[in-house]
Amino acid sequence: MATTISSNVTRPEPQALKRAIDALAARFGNRLVTSQAVREQHAHTTTWLPTQPPDAVVMAQETADIQDVVRICSANRVPVIAFGTGTSLEGQVNAPAGGVCIDLRDMNKVLEVHAEDLDCVIQPGVTRKALNEHLRDQGLFFPIDPGADASLGGMTSTRASGTNAVRYGTMRENVLALKVVRGDGEIITTGTRAKKSSAGYDLTHLFVGAEGTLGIISELTIRLRGIPDTIAAAACSFETVAGACQATILAIQTGIPVARIELLNAAQVKACNSYSKLSLPETPLLLLEFHGSEVEVAEQSKNFRDIAAECGGGDFTWTTKPEDRTKLWQARHDAYWSVKALRPGDSIGVVATDVCVPISRLADCVTETEDDLKRLNLLSPIVGHVGDGNFHCSLLCDVNNKDEMARGEEFMHRLVERAQSMDGTCTGEHGIGQGKQKYLKAELGPEALDAMRALKHALDPQNIFNPGKIVPAA
Amino acid sequence: MATTISSNVTRPEPQALKRAIDALAARFGNRLVTSQAVREQHAHTTTWLPTQPPDAVVMAQETADIQDVVRICSANRVPVIAFGTGTSLEGQVNAPAGGVCIDLRDMNKVLEVHAEDLDCVIQPGVTRKALNEHLRDQGLFFPIDPGADASLGGMTSTRASGTNAVRYGTMRENVLALKVVRGDGEIITTGTRAKKSSAGYDLTHLFVGAEGTLGIISELTIRLRGIPDTIAAAACSFETVAGACQATILAIQTGIPVARIELLNAAQVKACNSYSKLSLPETPLLLLEFHGSEVEVAEQSKNFRDIAAECGGGDFTWTTKPEDRTKLWQARHDAYWSVKALRPGDSIGVVATDVCVPISRLADCVTETEDDLKRLNLLSPIVGHVGDGNFHCSLLCDVNNKDEMARGEEFMHRLVERAQSMDGTCTGEHGIGQGKQKYLKAELGPEALDAMRALKHALDPQNIFNPGKIVPAA
Repeated sequence: MATTISSNVTRPEPQALKRAIDALAARFGNRLVTSQAVREQHAHTTTWLPTQPPDAVVMAQETADIQDVVRICSANRVPVIAFGTGTSLEGQVNAPAGGVCIDLRDMNKVLEVHAEDLDCVIQPGVTRKALNEHLRDQGLFFPIDPGADASLGGMTSTRASGTNAVRYGTMRENVLALKVVRGDGEIITTGTRAKKSSAGYDLTHLFVGAEGTLGIISELTIRLRGIPDTIAAAACSFETVAGACQATILAIQTGIPVARIELLNAAQVKACNSYSKLSLPETPLLLLEFHGSEVEVAEQSKNFRDIAAECGGGDFTWTTKPEDRTKLWQARHDAYWSVKALRPGDSIGVVATDVCVPISRLADCVTETEDDLKRLNLLSPIVGHVGDGNFHCSLLCDVNNKDEMARGEEFMHRLVERAQSMDGTCTGEHGIGQGKQKYLKAELGPEALDAMRALKHALDPQNIFNPGKIVPAA
Repeated sequence: MATTISSNVTRPEPQALKRAIDALAARFGNRLVTSQAVREQHAHTTTWLPTQPPDAVVMAQETADIQDVVRICSANRVPVIAFGTGTSLEGQVNAPAGGVCIDLRDMNKVLEVHAEDLDCVIQPGVTRKALNEHLRDQGLFFPIDPGADASLGGMTSTRASGTNAVRYGTMRENVLALKVVRGDGEIITTGTRAKKSSAGYDLTHLFVGAEGTLGIISELTIRLRGIPDTIAAAACSFETVAGACQATILAIQTGIPVARIELLNAAQVKACNSYSKLSLPETPLLLLEFHGSEVEVAEQSKNFRDIAAECGGGDFTWTTKPEDRTKLWQARHDAYWSVKALRPGDSIGVVATDVCVPISRLADCVTETEDDLKRLNLLSPIVGHVGDGNFHCSLLCDVNNKDEMARGEEFMHRLVERAQSMDGTCTGEHGIGQGKQKYLKAELGPEALDAMRALKHALDPQNIFNPGKIVPAA
């Protein structure tokens, strides 16, 4: 008999699961893996959520593999979970009801590059670094950079973004069309290579950010950009978070097309100084990047310098030399490791979480968050994609210290409530997964959840696609 | 008994319709209108489709009005059709099954402007000109310009765009969140004011472009931009459409952030010369607009001039003076009227249609379309939002001439097939409405249509919202 774990997650019947795994073994031979170690690797999650491994993993090599896995699982009502690189942060690849994980890493071909149209067609397992490597000779790049070398299928499914989003948008703005394997194994085509279309419901955007709960993405058509002639990096320290945010607001309002604008709060700068042997003033820091022609980036830098001065910014440094750019951005590149180094130890976990608010509220949101950390005696440097109002906390907690863990949970909860009370969202780019389901209702209301449940049921009536994610149990 | 018009359009039972209209009359008094003239005004359509008026029109003044209309209609299974300004082009406001039209023109308040966040909250009946008038003093504007002074609710529902889309995106990229009245009269909130979010399914984009078939938009949060410091206009004639398209491709590839880039084919230039007393060379013409600082627009213009010269462009003229800009763009502004003037007469109709292809195929698509017009002995100047690969034909036909009408239909049909065969779409910005339903299956396949039908049924199980639009009968 199937075991209901919660009202929206049901373990398959053991006999049905066995039938499915037998059928998959017959079809895939040693590309079906059931070893404990491999199953656990595929349920990696960097949250406080427990690891919930699938019952088996299939290494897919082509679209037909995905179709067959889905058909076999569907016939037996066994869950199917898509896996790219496992770098999602909210338990998206966990298998709370078990089932079959489809590992898409071998589906890593760039199928077509259309340089004149600035688009390309790829398989879902292509990672962003591999893609940019492939494109470089043609003077093209894909701008979305979520930090990890994630797969494009995964980035699409979590609606990822990162440091470049302020200029180039998120996955939402950069996916043109998808092919998606649906429950009966047939393939839905969501769009064409036309840059814009008014042809019917926007199926593309329904699958972007759906975290694999509505079908499995088997092919993507995405937008590309020309590599800019000149890239300038800049840095400027501010006395206060408010000053840094005000400079960002003015830069965007006056139309400076910043490509990146990252805030490191004082705690993060301190951590970077220590880890990367820098001597930055230990106050809020803005790191910027400008893309364009030589004349353009020079003007953008100059204009931003004037704005920064108005907003209490200190020395403004900018450069177009690659090695100096790298140095200037060193602190940002090492941010994660600098946080880890703050508190070494096997039992110390770094939990990354993100929220996003209207930019006018960002200074308040960050400052109140800093106050809360002090009050709760917790350590969490803050890094923000400040042009979008999006910031990350990297909370350090000793998982063996119950009291600290409780305070950590309280902090995370209050962070989300704070962002939502400022007309923001519980996640700007990490997704809902398992970790943030409890916040959706407060953010959008019960009617939006009804709609999401109706959509899930409409496209996945058997609830086999990544069950237990995004939409909370009714 | 209810009358089934086609498998997805059913006229309400006469008794149920009467009950609904009586209830609406009791609730709305003289804001419920059933006169023939007003009903016909609300089913205006500039296609060859017949006008299909609703049974009644309610003039809504606030969200509660929409909710009550929907509740009354839902209880009686009577269709509800939203109406903004009636400028849609594919029969979107027609009422093939009768029902009640909700006229939203009086819901025209700008509710909040958040200058620092570059967003605002508005009612659906606000028109784009009224909005820009409202915003001007704050140095802000809303960039989407579909030509007509359409309502923002309508523009959202057709996923409209226009001349500025190449730089600023379409409605798809510029709607942050919506409030939508669903079938039971309750309101779905689709998002927050955060600029980006990964919080669950993208409900916002499901309603953008849904043509009122999934619910009625009662409030919109949209993105704004700062009015650029300097605007430059430019014009350049080309020997061939291919040359003009190649210049466009290079401009976009090299990252010139053109704000507008419009192609007028030779027939359109000829029409403009005649109507606006201009003396432009009667060859393909590109009209451009650059937005930015003085330095930026000067550099952009210069860079484009070099590209144009490489691609066989003739004299390149550019200016930042408002009166000269207007003169340079005169031909584009008068395009519609110049077409009308080509062939006066009561029985002559102008049917506007649009397709969109990858930009690398645009020259082929336009040239083959011109050849087809010659072959069919038809007159249709062409204007293109060429940076997006989107172009319009304004076909002149004598509605009393059966043979000409048949050739016109053949032309339109072949135009769509041509665009689709080039990996394009049957509509870049006009929408599907009634006119283009027959092309959806060829474009996206039966699986996409299944998905669209499932979504429609999930969110509108009674099929009361604008029935008979977008999704063709199964």
